[in-house]
Amino acid sequence: MTQNAVSAYREVPLNSAHKSTLAFSDDERAAVYRAIETRRDVRDQFLPMPINQDVLARILGAAHAAPSVGFMQPWNFVLIESLEQRQRVQKAFKMAQAEEGLQFEGERKQLYQNLKLEGITKAPLNICITCDPNRNGKTGLGRTHNPQMSQYSVVCAVQNLWLAARAEGVGVGWVSIYHEDRMREILNIPSGIEIIAYLCVGYVDELYSEPELQKKGWGKRLALDELIMHEKWEQE
Amino acid sequence: MTQNAVSAYREVPLNSAHKSTLAFSDDERAAVYRAIETRRDVRDQFLPMPINQDVLARILGAAHAAPSVGFMQPWNFVLIESLEQRQRVQKAFKMAQAEEGLQFEGERKQLYQNLKLEGITKAPLNICITCDPNRNGKTGLGRTHNPQMSQYSVVCAVQNLWLAARAEGVGVGWVSIYHEDRMREILNIPSGIEIIAYLCVGYVDELYSEPELQKKGWGKRLALDELIMHEKWEQE
Repeated sequence: MTQNAVSAYREVPLNSAHKSTLAFSDDERAAVYRAIETRRDVRDQFLPMPINQDVLARILGAAHAAPSVGFMQPWNFVLIESLEQRQRVQKAFKMAQAEEGLQFEGERKQLYQNLKLEGITKAPLNICITCDPNRNGKTGLGRTHNPQMSQYSVVCAVQNLWLAARAEGVGVGWVSIYHEDRMREILNIPSGIEIIAYLCVGYVDELYSEPELQKKGWGKRLALDELIMHEKWEQE
Repeated sequence: MTQNAVSAYREVPLNSAHKSTLAFSDDERAAVYRAIETRRDVRDQFLPMPINQDVLARILGAAHAAPSVGFMQPWNFVLIESLEQRQRVQKAFKMAQAEEGLQFEGERKQLYQNLKLEGITKAPLNICITCDPNRNGKTGLGRTHNPQMSQYSVVCAVQNLWLAARAEGVGVGWVSIYHEDRMREILNIPSGIEIIAYLCVGYVDELYSEPELQKKGWGKRLALDELIMHEKWEQE
C-alpha cells in the first residue's frame, strides 16, 4: 500500500461534497476533527495549577453525554486530588512498570525504561472512571448476549471526556500499568464495581504534534487502508 | 440532589474563564460540545443514499486517530454494503432480540417489543470494528497487567468515528443484540480476532433531541452530581 493511499484516508479536504442537511458547517467540522486529531496521551506536560471548576464540570458533562447500552449510564467518577492518594497510586504504578519492563530486551528495554509513562503526581487531578455492570439489574436491553457492552459504554465516556478536555486545553493521560487489586484497595472500590480507566488530568503547556510513542520511536502509525476489509474478513 | 445541581454540570457557559493557551476558541469548543451532546444512537432515521466516499474516509480516519494502548492500533474495519450480508445479520439480530425480550414482563415487555433497535438493512452501510489483541505480541506496553486495554482502545476508535459522523450529518447505531458465534460465522472472523462493535451507518434526515430510550420512556438521564466521588469510593 503506498503512502498516497494512506494519505487519501487522512487528508480528505473538509469542503468535499456532502449531502446531509444535518452536517455541521465547515468550521464546526474542522473543530471536531481538530480535537480528534490533536488529542494526545499526556504524561509529562502537565502544569500544577488546578483545573477551573467550570471546565471540569463541562468535561465531566461530556463524559456523561456518552452513549450507553440500554441507556444504563454505568459510570462513576472518582476525583483524586490529594497528593497522598496520588503518591500511593504512583507507587503502585512503579511496581507494575518494573514488572512490565522485564519482557523487553536490549534497545527496546532501554527505550521502555526511558519512556515517561505517567503524570500521576505531576497532574493536579486524577480521575478514576468505573463501571457498575449491575446498575439496572444483571442483564438488560442490549447487553444480554454481550455483557461487555457495559464496560464499552464507560470507555465511550472516557473518549468524550478526552476530546472535550483537548478542546479546553486540558491534557489527559490514561494510566494502565498497575495491579487491579492494589488500585481497588487504594481507591476503596467495592467488589461489584470495575475500574475502567485511571486518568491524569491537568492543563498543559504544549502537546506533541504526533503520538508520543511514535515520536520516541516505540511504534509507527499503521496504514489505514490495510486495516479495511469489505463484506467479511478477508484472509491476510 | 436537585435538578439545578444537575444542570450545573451540564450547562456551564462556554465563555467561563479558562487558563490554557492550548484551549480552542469559543466557537471551536462549542462545535466539539455540539457533536458530543447531539450525537444519537440511530435506529430508524437512515436514508438510503450511499455515503460520500470522502466523508467515509474522514470518519474512518477519525477512528484511526483514536488513542491505543502502547500505540498498538488493534482495530480493523469490515465495511458491509451488500444487502445479502446485512439481511443475514438482521436475521441473527431478530433471533437474539426475541430471546432478550423474554426477561421483561408486562408494560416493560410491551415497550421493549415496540422499540426499534436496529437499522441494519435500512442503513446503506454497516461497519464491524474488530480487535486483534495480539497485533504486537501477546503482551506489550500498558497491557501486561490490564489486557482489556486492547479492546478499550478499539472502543475509543468507535466513539471517535461516531462523533466525526455526527459532524458530517451521518447517523450511527451500535447493534449489540446478537450471538457472537453467529456474527463471527457471517463475517468470517478468525478465532484470534474479537468483534467489538457492529455499527449501522448512513445519512439521516432527523435526530432525536434527547436519547431515544429516554424519549420513549425506557430510562432517564441520571444526575451527574450523584455519580461523582472524591478521593476514593464513598459507600452509598
